[in-house]
Parts: sequence; C-alpha cells; structure tokens
Amino acid sequence: MATEELAARFDANGLIPAVVQDAQTGQVLMVAWMNAESLQLTLQTREAVFWSRSRKELWHKGATSGNVQRVREIWIDCDADTLLLKVDPAGPACHTGATSCFYRRMS
Amino acid sequence: MATEELAARFDANGLIPAVVQDAQTGQVLMVAWMNAESLQLTLQTREAVFWSRSRKELWHKGATSGNVQRVREIWIDCDADTLLLKVDPAGPACHTGATSCFYRRMS
Repeated sequence: MATEELAARFDANGLIPAVVQDAQTGQVLMVAWMNAESLQLTLQTREAVFWSRSRKELWHKGATSGNVQRVREIWIDCDADTLLLKVDPAGPACHTGATSCFYRRMS
Repeated sequence: MATEELAARFDANGLIPAVVQDAQTGQVLMVAWMNAESLQLTLQTREAVFWSRSRKELWHKGATSGNVQRVREIWIDCDADTLLLKVDPAGPACHTGATSCFYRRMS
C-alpha cells in the first residue's frame, strides 16, 4: 500500500481525532486530538502526544502525571480522518483517576 | 448521578463524535458523528443513527446494507464531548466490507 494512502487527513483546524485503546484489555481509554506535529512526535517517540484544544499546546500524555501511553500500534480508518492507537498505559487515562475517561454509562 | 451531568456536549457544529466498539470482541469498528436528533433516535430505537457530515443528513447505519448496529450500551467521557457505543453489529462496519474501518495499520 502506498504511503500516501496512509496519510492522515487533518480537519479544517489541522486536527484529527485519535481513539486510544488499551492494547492488552481492549478497553477504550479516551479520545483526544492530534495535529501533524503531535502525530509526528508520537511516531518518533512511541509515546502518545496530543494537541490540547483547551490549552492550545502540545500535550505529551503523562509528562506530568507519569501516566504515559506507550504506543504499540497506530491504525487509520477507511477515509483517513480518524486514528486508533493501541497503547500500554502506565496508569489511568483519565484526569479523574479512572482507568478510562468513559466511566459513566449514559444508557 | 444527575441527568444533566450526562448531557452530551455538542461542538460548534452541533456534533459529537461517537466511537463504535463491538460489544462482544472489543474491536473498535468505526468513529462517526451524531447530532442531537441522531443521538435521540439511537436512544429510542437502540440502533445506531449518525449524522453524515458529507451528505448532511441522518444516517441510520445499515438501513441500506442491512448492517445495522444494535446498541447495547452508551458511555460518555469525562468532559462529555465524546460517546462510546458498544454494539452488536449485524455485519461489517466499513463500506469496504472490512469488519472495522480501522483495517490499515499506519505504524
């Protein structure tokens, strides 16, 4: 498959959503956003780096908390506008301390 | 937990991303978008209904293909701006025929 077919398509804000899944358990941990630079850093360092839309800055997940996410695999969807990261998390994904940010059942 | 705490926060376009996960296998199948109406229809019918950003219309997943997604659970994340649907899919999630839209490994 040609490399260009795997090129991420960023939205009008230069961002692409990334679903983060625990590589071992399959639990969906969080969804965050990446710009081109954070994706490049993630590919280089094999640790998840996002773009914080609220703080408008690069966000190396776990840089402060220690809860880094070691990236095992990165998948891209059929229309190349969403990423799926399979990671080994060093700790909880959520700032609340929950393993996953999806800790509340709506229905 | 008060109902309002579980209220979905739609973005400036009135949309919220929804991660769709196979309830049995844990495989992440796709990510699509919902507006308030599609979320309401999903809650009512227990089948996934999205908002097609390209066609700008409600999109009852599987209405044409038969590959409906029976919704078992809906979870909402800590900041209430992303949904996670756990579904029983009647067939492939992807228009390519792949089980998951994430069938291409980037890294």
